[in-house]
Amino acid sequence: MSDFLAACRRQPVSRVPVWFMRQAGRHLPEYRALRGGGGTLFDAVADPALAAEITLQPVRRYGVDAAILYSDIMVPVHAAGFGVEIRAGVGPVVAEPFRTAADLDRLPPFDPAARTPYVGDAARLVTAELAPSGVPLIGFAGAPFTVASYLVEGGPSREHLRTKAMMFSEPELWAALLDRLADYAIATLRDQVRAGAAAVQLFDSWAGALTPDDYRASVLPASAKVLAAVAGLGVPRIHFGVGTGELLGLLAEAGADVVGVDWRVPLAEAARRTGGAVALQGNLDPAAVTAGWGAVEPRARRILAEGSALPGHVFNLGHGVLPDTDPAVLARLVDLVHAAPPPAGPQGSP
Amino acid sequence: MSDFLAACRRQPVSRVPVWFMRQAGRHLPEYRALRGGGGTLFDAVADPALAAEITLQPVRRYGVDAAILYSDIMVPVHAAGFGVEIRAGVGPVVAEPFRTAADLDRLPPFDPAARTPYVGDAARLVTAELAPSGVPLIGFAGAPFTVASYLVEGGPSREHLRTKAMMFSEPELWAALLDRLADYAIATLRDQVRAGAAAVQLFDSWAGALTPDDYRASVLPASAKVLAAVAGLGVPRIHFGVGTGELLGLLAEAGADVVGVDWRVPLAEAARRTGGAVALQGNLDPAAVTAGWGAVEPRARRILAEGSALPGHVFNLGHGVLPDTDPAVLARLVDLVHAAPPPAGPQGSP
Repeated sequence: MSDFLAACRRQPVSRVPVWFMRQAGRHLPEYRALRGGGGTLFDAVADPALAAEITLQPVRRYGVDAAILYSDIMVPVHAAGFGVEIRAGVGPVVAEPFRTAADLDRLPPFDPAARTPYVGDAARLVTAELAPSGVPLIGFAGAPFTVASYLVEGGPSREHLRTKAMMFSEPELWAALLDRLADYAIATLRDQVRAGAAAVQLFDSWAGALTPDDYRASVLPASAKVLAAVAGLGVPRIHFGVGTGELLGLLAEAGADVVGVDWRVPLAEAARRTGGAVALQGNLDPAAVTAGWGAVEPRARRILAEGSALPGHVFNLGHGVLPDTDPAVLARLVDLVHAAPPPAGPQGSP
Repeated sequence: MSDFLAACRRQPVSRVPVWFMRQAGRHLPEYRALRGGGGTLFDAVADPALAAEITLQPVRRYGVDAAILYSDIMVPVHAAGFGVEIRAGVGPVVAEPFRTAADLDRLPPFDPAARTPYVGDAARLVTAELAPSGVPLIGFAGAPFTVASYLVEGGPSREHLRTKAMMFSEPELWAALLDRLADYAIATLRDQVRAGAAAVQLFDSWAGALTPDDYRASVLPASAKVLAAVAGLGVPRIHFGVGTGELLGLLAEAGADVVGVDWRVPLAEAARRTGGAVALQGNLDPAAVTAGWGAVEPRARRILAEGSALPGHVFNLGHGVLPDTDPAVLARLVDLVHAAPPPAGPQGSP
């Protein structure tokens, strides 16, 4: 079994596995060359050969322990016709935001084979290519809260005011929206696993805007539905958010095998909050990577030391790779992680 | 003694004190009428009669337990001639950001009497007006890290990349900048206390972007210098940041009497992290306030219940009042807090 899958399952590893959120993308010259100036993100995702190639670029360059499909959390709702575009320098923008119960009709049952056949096609191309090396592919979906925040706000938001207003003041409509989006996440994750993904990550990037009480009451049930539905697929489930220090226990409780930790929470503290019941993924500050190797090395060593005491540790950044990251620094980081002695603890080699 | 000052000092109160960060400002119709469309924030701050009137507006409307001087954390560096403007809808913008040691010359020793006489004048007008009622005035300053982040980035920033790059890669320059900004904060806080401020708040709004290790090594010393310097003035010191859940113990350790807590961390957990050694201020989600009274009431009652077990609790929002907040909701919130039974614990009436 790959070290990545073993660490996710809190089993012995030969070395600490490492991959990076947003490892495929703008920071790579070969990505910029391939994408050029043309086409939208949705266009690129809809071209299976192109999406597969982009997915594979960082695996070839860095020798990371996992690929993650080049796609976007908004792909299913976009493909369902909700009216989403990715605006450069802004993010997902929704022309007609979700406002009333009538908008639920704009989210009909989601059939990946009909709406996003290119996602499965890209995943099959990637897994075929990776089969000889044994490097697994991670499939992913946006968690219901984070996707809902874009649909309700109409775009990226700092305060999430409209989203919270709906959550607090129209709890039935909110629950219906999140339940619908849970079905979307389940459908695309199942599709990606059927196409060869060996692990899945649920991105609840903005859940950290919520109090633990509000997360528990209004968000956790929908995310738990997603994670329960994919439990039977036999692949590890990673659950990640940013600024979610106070929610780590709840992210685990929702049904994760691995909880992603941003850079703010030391891994030892994250382990305490998750009760040691899950593996942890993380958690180098992406900003430290842009500051050069001198900033990276001591912080990475500290994280490796903390990770060695965990039941399972997947090295990653605390959030996605930033666009002005130097690939040479990431390459050295992968080498550093791979050269570290494998954990001697419960995760250690037999 | 006022209930606000008593709670800050962990002494008995007759009722739970309450004030709101950014209680003076755009959400108030009387503020919009007074400011009209004319002049910049720095213009308004430089007019002592206008700044005093704006400061007093929320005290009159809400009957809050403290006033906070209408000003901005960038006022001292602006007045020193660094070249800052407040751009509507953006925030502080710096035309020539801080980049090298030569830029330290653009931050000469700060003399409030010469550079910002209007700040002391406004504070004197406010304290004279408030004297009969016994409502105290809170003075404030930006903490070195948060002010530095604007000077180094050139404006508001999501990732603080340049700031962190300087912190990580040029530690001597970084320390010199923060030490200089500590002196600025000390000078303006002393000036405000001399002019009648009965408490001070140090705003380290963006410190939550840092890991605890980086905060401890690269930020805490400068903030501790500020808080130590004002300790001798005999006024309570409040230390606040957003997203600082992992830093609460360090915010207290830096020398605070009160630690401000954003809405993400339940007060009981914040008390655990600060070792029960300080009073706590907070922590209702400002977004809940914009969602109406139905969202506010249960959350406020929960916070009051948690606060009643603390050695000292000042009710506040977890961050500033948002511009589209309904004043009628804040008015009901003040009434709810004031009607709550005073804490029966260590903070209770004798």
